[in-house]
Amino acid sequence: MTTTLQEIHEAAKSLRGKVVRTPLVPAGRLSERLGCEVLLKLENMQHTGSFKDRGAYIRLSKLSKEEAQRGVIAMSAGNHAQGVAYHAQRLGIPATIVMPEFAPFSKVERTRAFGARIMLTGDTLDASAHSARQIAEEEGLTFVHPFDDPDVIAGQGTVGLEILEDCPDVDSIVVPIGGGGLMSGIATVAKDANPEIQLVGVESELFPSMTDAIRGTATMTGGQSLADGIAVKVPGQLTKAIIEKLVDDIVVVAESDIEGAIHRLAEEQKLVVEGAGAAGVAAILADPERFAGRKVVAVICGGNIDLKLLSGILTRGLIRDGRMVRLRIGIVDQPGVLARIASIIGKTGGNIIEVYHQRLFYDVPAKQADIDVVLETRNSEHVAEVVDLLRSDGFPTRVLSDHSAQGTL
Amino acid sequence: MTTTLQEIHEAAKSLRGKVVRTPLVPAGRLSERLGCEVLLKLENMQHTGSFKDRGAYIRLSKLSKEEAQRGVIAMSAGNHAQGVAYHAQRLGIPATIVMPEFAPFSKVERTRAFGARIMLTGDTLDASAHSARQIAEEEGLTFVHPFDDPDVIAGQGTVGLEILEDCPDVDSIVVPIGGGGLMSGIATVAKDANPEIQLVGVESELFPSMTDAIRGTATMTGGQSLADGIAVKVPGQLTKAIIEKLVDDIVVVAESDIEGAIHRLAEEQKLVVEGAGAAGVAAILADPERFAGRKVVAVICGGNIDLKLLSGILTRGLIRDGRMVRLRIGIVDQPGVLARIASIIGKTGGNIIEVYHQRLFYDVPAKQADIDVVLETRNSEHVAEVVDLLRSDGFPTRVLSDHSAQGTL
Repeated sequence: MTTTLQEIHEAAKSLRGKVVRTPLVPAGRLSERLGCEVLLKLENMQHTGSFKDRGAYIRLSKLSKEEAQRGVIAMSAGNHAQGVAYHAQRLGIPATIVMPEFAPFSKVERTRAFGARIMLTGDTLDASAHSARQIAEEEGLTFVHPFDDPDVIAGQGTVGLEILEDCPDVDSIVVPIGGGGLMSGIATVAKDANPEIQLVGVESELFPSMTDAIRGTATMTGGQSLADGIAVKVPGQLTKAIIEKLVDDIVVVAESDIEGAIHRLAEEQKLVVEGAGAAGVAAILADPERFAGRKVVAVICGGNIDLKLLSGILTRGLIRDGRMVRLRIGIVDQPGVLARIASIIGKTGGNIIEVYHQRLFYDVPAKQADIDVVLETRNSEHVAEVVDLLRSDGFPTRVLSDHSAQGTL
Repeated sequence: MTTTLQEIHEAAKSLRGKVVRTPLVPAGRLSERLGCEVLLKLENMQHTGSFKDRGAYIRLSKLSKEEAQRGVIAMSAGNHAQGVAYHAQRLGIPATIVMPEFAPFSKVERTRAFGARIMLTGDTLDASAHSARQIAEEEGLTFVHPFDDPDVIAGQGTVGLEILEDCPDVDSIVVPIGGGGLMSGIATVAKDANPEIQLVGVESELFPSMTDAIRGTATMTGGQSLADGIAVKVPGQLTKAIIEKLVDDIVVVAESDIEGAIHRLAEEQKLVVEGAGAAGVAAILADPERFAGRKVVAVICGGNIDLKLLSGILTRGLIRDGRMVRLRIGIVDQPGVLARIASIIGKTGGNIIEVYHQRLFYDVPAKQADIDVVLETRNSEHVAEVVDLLRSDGFPTRVLSDHSAQGTL
């Protein structure tokens, strides 16, 4: 059982008017930074914020009348849940979504808003999957698999058709891999069109499960990945067979690279992208030589990131770039000292945005104190200049490497 | 002197391959919320993050060889600066950008990165504009006006051609107005194609200067607008004439609506949008009846928002939606109290993310204390439930309306 090019073309016909024909946009600033021509396929512009809309619709549209009446069930804490719930609602099919108990509020609520019955059960994804299978059997519901299903793969493959339509001379396509449905579909299309197109899959360092499956290795997977959309422990069987045959390489990216990519995509390309969606760009950022001079499409597979998390990543990005810094400065606790410090910082063009005096818990003699100053700076050279000036004026100063001392939201 | 349709078509030809042909994407979730069909024209995807790229290129491409050699000068703290600097660099034209001394670091640095000579001078935009004119005269530089120039208007008008190409049956186009260049160009195109297309301009409540100019009123303008890209005190003469003749209405939106639109665009449409860029969507959110049942294009004119500001807006949005709340709870300062509070909150499904004990400055008797708890909640009903339970258990509790007590970044 596999997915044919013919089925993907049929899926494209079915999807017309049902999902967003997403744009492929040139990423000028990323391209300059990376020395290759980067284009972004914006699946985060889909109605539910990810490519999952496509496969979910195709699978649901293939149900028999009876199956549709009885309803469907899916297990997912994320994008698959929303894709299934959304299209089930539009098609008038009752949908049950099983989510693990720890599923984030916002995702539960969004899925519920599509009219699905939500069951919070299981304290791991595996336990939830088990429940879902059980309920499916008890209630006669059709289980909609998130990736290991030929119809789902056909739906996701339409992303590949659109990429080739908009950019027939693409050299490389970079696709995040969780269960492998998206990559399987795109690979089927791309290698048929031109076997020379380089296909690069991307996994998070915490979940290199497709790499493992193909190599027969057994890396320990797990942990809190920013890219929860591709945090899959056991990839598909169908997808593995396709990827093994067609995909040139799978690279594994560090969580810090994913964070960096989320930040760059927001700042330079004006896009809100979730961790999984940023994994492709992370792979290019981590190894630009591999793509040098090429025309590279990165599939931005989803945009459903928690806004608190995004907010934290944006702030951390400024700190990493030396555009915001928190300095801890040792002072003698007497009047006039803050004025001196503020004047030194002001002279360099630094902009003080917060000041904290905290004496209670610091490990310093009672007459001394530490003061924390948060300031906006131009870049890391500017930070070094401020620190040098403060030190040479007699203030022991150190750069706090992140913002954790403050407990930001 | 005005801009003809012919000139806009010629501008479109010149711009081919020089700027991004931006996509028009359907905004499904906004459409459902608003009861009209919203499409977003993504000018935030331009290389420098705004539509200003278009007019700047057209103006620069029209310079004589001599003018190009002598160079150009522009005054702007924002998007116009980047548009001029970027295209001047690509065309090999020396560019001087005059910015007010208070211009944000990030904008100064980005403009400098395009190779422009930056002059920080003047403590108001007016003073900077005066300096720029003076330097232009002294050094024989060509002054590139941000909006009141027929070539600039022709360039911006190409946005209108693309909208009509992608959506010939558009009913309404909503366009933010600062100096009026973008609206003038779009209006020239749209009213020629179909006089029935409704054209709605949008200004911030703090800068309703085009409204004033057309009505002959004199509202006090000024203040810190989120929409700094349209915070223009004196609109153009050319643009005023065109807008007066062709535009159906100009609406004024509240700053809070602009903030809400920035948040919705990030959360629901996965876009990073600056205040001016969000003004069109703000206008639709503020008055959905006006657009009910219509096919409405909102021009997302730019995406250059300070990431710290965006970060703050995203957090405030969660608070506004009741998905995050800070409660100030009165307690007797003794062991075990926090455990009781945490257990009450936990029972309702609230997720505590921060706790602050601060006794020093609160106006309470010494044996009592206030505790601040920040928690994630489902919605405002959930917040009310938590507050009721705490109160009925003997804890005086109030909801802090925003996050200011904490001094977030």
